[in-house]
Amino acid sequence: MSPRTAGSLAPLAGQDPGPADGGPLKVALLGCGAVGAEVFRQLREQEGDLAARIGAPLEVVGVAVRDTAAPRGVKIDGSLLTTDAMALATRPDVDIVVEVIGGIEPARSLLLAALAAGTSVVTANKALLAADSATMHAAARGSGADLYYEASVAGAIPLLRPLRESLAGDAVHRVLGIVNGTTNFILDRMDSAGTGLHAALDEAQALGYAEADPTADVQGFDAAAKAAILASIAFHTEVRLDQVYREGITEVTEADIASARALGCVIKLLAICERSDGGISARVHPAMIPRMHPLAAVREAYNAVFVEADAAGRLMFYGAGAGGGPTASAVLGDIVTVGRNRLAGTRGPDASTYAGLPVLPISAARTSYYVALDVADRPGVLAPVAEAFARHGVSIRAVRQEGRGDDANLVIVTHIAQEAELAATVAELGTMEPVRAVDSVLRVEGEEGA
Amino acid sequence: MSPRTAGSLAPLAGQDPGPADGGPLKVALLGCGAVGAEVFRQLREQEGDLAARIGAPLEVVGVAVRDTAAPRGVKIDGSLLTTDAMALATRPDVDIVVEVIGGIEPARSLLLAALAAGTSVVTANKALLAADSATMHAAARGSGADLYYEASVAGAIPLLRPLRESLAGDAVHRVLGIVNGTTNFILDRMDSAGTGLHAALDEAQALGYAEADPTADVQGFDAAAKAAILASIAFHTEVRLDQVYREGITEVTEADIASARALGCVIKLLAICERSDGGISARVHPAMIPRMHPLAAVREAYNAVFVEADAAGRLMFYGAGAGGGPTASAVLGDIVTVGRNRLAGTRGPDASTYAGLPVLPISAARTSYYVALDVADRPGVLAPVAEAFARHGVSIRAVRQEGRGDDANLVIVTHIAQEAELAATVAELGTMEPVRAVDSVLRVEGEEGA
Repeated sequence: MSPRTAGSLAPLAGQDPGPADGGPLKVALLGCGAVGAEVFRQLREQEGDLAARIGAPLEVVGVAVRDTAAPRGVKIDGSLLTTDAMALATRPDVDIVVEVIGGIEPARSLLLAALAAGTSVVTANKALLAADSATMHAAARGSGADLYYEASVAGAIPLLRPLRESLAGDAVHRVLGIVNGTTNFILDRMDSAGTGLHAALDEAQALGYAEADPTADVQGFDAAAKAAILASIAFHTEVRLDQVYREGITEVTEADIASARALGCVIKLLAICERSDGGISARVHPAMIPRMHPLAAVREAYNAVFVEADAAGRLMFYGAGAGGGPTASAVLGDIVTVGRNRLAGTRGPDASTYAGLPVLPISAARTSYYVALDVADRPGVLAPVAEAFARHGVSIRAVRQEGRGDDANLVIVTHIAQEAELAATVAELGTMEPVRAVDSVLRVEGEEGA
Repeated sequence: MSPRTAGSLAPLAGQDPGPADGGPLKVALLGCGAVGAEVFRQLREQEGDLAARIGAPLEVVGVAVRDTAAPRGVKIDGSLLTTDAMALATRPDVDIVVEVIGGIEPARSLLLAALAAGTSVVTANKALLAADSATMHAAARGSGADLYYEASVAGAIPLLRPLRESLAGDAVHRVLGIVNGTTNFILDRMDSAGTGLHAALDEAQALGYAEADPTADVQGFDAAAKAAILASIAFHTEVRLDQVYREGITEVTEADIASARALGCVIKLLAICERSDGGISARVHPAMIPRMHPLAAVREAYNAVFVEADAAGRLMFYGAGAGGGPTASAVLGDIVTVGRNRLAGTRGPDASTYAGLPVLPISAARTSYYVALDVADRPGVLAPVAEAFARHGVSIRAVRQEGRGDDANLVIVTHIAQEAELAATVAELGTMEPVRAVDSVLRVEGEEGA
């Protein structure tokens, strides 16, 4: 009896299913920066263990680099190095292409060519998967190849495989994650050492946690790409980067940090993927979370992702979200899986997008809000402010006012409200006479019952 | 080109690979207590989602129970109920047997019969897997069936799949876990509310966290079974329950809890699996861990497992470790995986025991120790006590002495030492004139650099 072909899993169709008995699985490495060098080193140092776990040895048959003469952190035989990444990616004898170049092109063209040739792909490329996972998955499905990318989100922390496989029998309703180590380090320094944003960024750069151009991290682009990937897998629906609402941490002030503390909270840059009645949403922004929440204890450059599912309840996954070692660990785990599949003549579960849920705009989001106002310190200010909230259907949970001469700080925390209602409230507050300025608006997440 | 057969993965050989095109995958449920009822409910409520994720619908064709007339938490058509579990487990049309009876017999005979018939198995049975996983895996391998048991350790927390697949390219060197919710609840109450052991146990029973006979939990048997399973997978070596050193929490006193607090620690029942130069070890015992360690923040009946791997660094997995919903979530995740494999005519990665490392006895373990002595409160006591430690090669890190009339409490914390040396020290201390009693000996785990 021959196995049947299923929607979500299919035996390899047509292309070379692997090496001849006893031969090695051939690996092409595209890119050899910090992660690539670590992957190469691990492939060599753990050769015996990997062969035992897969059932066949791995052989690196080429390493594509921009400059074959550049120094790198690992010794590689010169005959393996090439600048012709396309020729390497499409070599017919290659079983697995491992891509650690990053960015959309040339990675996209290289991987589509490899997949078209039936070669399985392991990649750490969050930008590419967040931009257009549908095209990548279609190419893999079309040739019966594997496409794995555990390293694209939160480094070594196993997340995509648990979401796709361990929780495949459950209904995930929320994912709340600290998925960018750079911004977590900065916000943690601001909270724990009273450092300003710029000084904390300098420190992150000095320690190698932030790049010379920190835009992708501090503006939330990196976290947004990861949110797109997480939402796609958690909700069985394709979510692209351009559907993820995004705010970075550059507007977070020392006053916000102090206000958070006064409210028993800490500020974190969160990637939030939620399922509601009308569809799903993915957003990245700084948010206050209660200090008792497990995510509040995630310090320095660590990452953690909180998953809420109907039957499983609340789960958290914690670990190092970046760096050569942790990222290489995730890449190698995928290589072992792809290698096993290759030998068995099968492929892993395909990207599951059967649910096709609508992706809602930020205006439909529902959460609590912290609003800090600079108001005149005289009687009769609170009433019109409270009326403005009421007019837009936003219910106030707590108010705190502190005088400072002529001015006062008025801090308002709302019950759960819809983003559009809150935005209308804030717009009206900005036009009111006793309100001199809306200093800050921050979402409050992770509260019990929220 | 036909796929080749590999050591670790093999296409189904000989038996029925699944239903005819379009037909459902047939599921037999063995046991219908709290977990079984929840599995049955989820299979029904999530029918459409599960079918989409697997590629074929699931159909429950029978539920084996002890008493078909007993009340249960879910409505089941009477025609599905049977008391003949063996007939159901070996029905030739069944694709997946799901076992949630627990205990070694009759579960073992039922599952071996199912596996022998080529039927894939999903089980939550930690006792069975810890007692003799080799026999179970051999039966699965022999017929090309799947054997999955994610629910056997830490309920819904994805652990076995991440260890076996996500970390398959890394070298795990330590697993440190809170894997028993009952004892964590009791120790947490003792620490946070000053409750005594027996009162905390009563509370746990009242809340349904502890069974009427709490022996398996409080004596550490439950945690030891999970330690055997975790060590086997983490170290690619078969580890049986009888190779796991075990101490329960019944000897933990309020004085120990207070001492832990004075040292900046909290006491947890830990399952510890370690790799050292000479081999591997698995042990379960109460231990002090620093309050700054992520495991110290695991409260109430929650579970968490800390994994340290060479490349990935420190990872933690946190969530509900028991209960119908969380356990059912893990069972259903495995059902989806097995269903996908069944349709694709393949099976998941086999138990990997290639490393075959020696399992070391507790006497070879190395850690720090807390030793509390009741000594005479007079000059000249500390010197001979310190000499006893030195004679056995155990280095002292800290000493604290508190007088209380004629007696004194002498608390000693050691540097890392070997268990055998510490045991010899404690034996000698017990015979020394100024030492009236050795009140307590506790291991100290989870310290930086340890």
